[in-house]
Amino acid sequence: MSKGNVSASVIKRLPRYYRFLGGLIDQNIVRISSGELANRMGLTASQIRQDLNCFGGFGQQGYGYNVHQLYDEIGEILGLNSHFGAIIIGAGNLGRAVANYLSSERRGFHLMGIFDKKEALAGQLIKGQPVRHISGLDEFCRAYKPDVAVLCLPYAAAADTAEQLVRLGVKGFWNFSHYDLSLKYPDIPVENVHLSDSLMQFCYKVKESKKQQNENQN
Amino acid sequence: MSKGNVSASVIKRLPRYYRFLGGLIDQNIVRISSGELANRMGLTASQIRQDLNCFGGFGQQGYGYNVHQLYDEIGEILGLNSHFGAIIIGAGNLGRAVANYLSSERRGFHLMGIFDKKEALAGQLIKGQPVRHISGLDEFCRAYKPDVAVLCLPYAAAADTAEQLVRLGVKGFWNFSHYDLSLKYPDIPVENVHLSDSLMQFCYKVKESKKQQNENQN
Repeated sequence: MSKGNVSASVIKRLPRYYRFLGGLIDQNIVRISSGELANRMGLTASQIRQDLNCFGGFGQQGYGYNVHQLYDEIGEILGLNSHFGAIIIGAGNLGRAVANYLSSERRGFHLMGIFDKKEALAGQLIKGQPVRHISGLDEFCRAYKPDVAVLCLPYAAAADTAEQLVRLGVKGFWNFSHYDLSLKYPDIPVENVHLSDSLMQFCYKVKESKKQQNENQN
Repeated sequence: MSKGNVSASVIKRLPRYYRFLGGLIDQNIVRISSGELANRMGLTASQIRQDLNCFGGFGQQGYGYNVHQLYDEIGEILGLNSHFGAIIIGAGNLGRAVANYLSSERRGFHLMGIFDKKEALAGQLIKGQPVRHISGLDEFCRAYKPDVAVLCLPYAAAADTAEQLVRLGVKGFWNFSHYDLSLKYPDIPVENVHLSDSLMQFCYKVKESKKQQNENQN
């Protein structure tokens, strides 16, 4: 069980394994061969063995993987049993969706607070948390020391808010804004969800697929 | 201007260029050198020249890129001037956030309808569109022929809904559910936004960063 040297590319694939294994557990599947797992995930058995055999969870040859054990180990490597405190900046639809998400999935984080600049939202309850006005951010962070922040706010506000949060000791960002945090804060963990980029990629795929269909018809 | 053979890896980077160039236009910047653009984007000038010189938009050596021209060409390659009709399945917070998004960004898509299985939501207006009950999906698709669907619904419902939509002629999915569409529909364009995977990646980064800090302190 050597967990020290899992490569970055394997780490990138672990969440998908984790999702699939969770699905197997829901179906009461206790063991699975690399071939069967490969089949379900659209991968090759040898890729799966390469990815997963560098840490524990493998049964003896021919017995397949112990699903629960492998699930737990991947969860441990990803740190999903952590209890990092998270605040959400921006209580619009996206902020609310993320709040639901953090509260239901409990993957390493717990929701400590939600902030917005709109006075009218202050006090509204989202997942049991009152929306707080952004003017109280300094005081809140000094008192409760959240580990990370989720940025669900527009580009124009993101740079200043990020700077404020870094100054207040926030140690990571789940970033839904267009602002490229890593350029200014290369040492702080940032995970981006650029919906805009995803939508443009999608547009390209749909366009190319239509073009292909038209060519095939001619 | 050869746009036929832009590689898949360049295509993946185009949305980020597009975002940055849009920011330059907002700042009234007309020309930019590869060095300056590289600096702003945290890339090397040679990478930018490699990425962008395979299609148009380059000025003469030493004059830099024409920002507007490059922006328009990237938009054209990505198909952002298309008018693909999109429907959203799921009118929860995420579905609402996506509706805002599609309506404000207008990147190749226009919103035609929003569906949910909750009777209580039917008729509510989101961005001028009434939420429709999912029971009317067949009829709507036959009448209005949406090109693509955005899946903002739970895993359990995604497989059946996707099958129904494919049968109704939907030609692409922007998929926010955990359901891995491409396994079943390898020929249909799918762009996934797996928030769960992103959150797990983020958890890993935060965990590793904390570990590093602790080690540095000892």
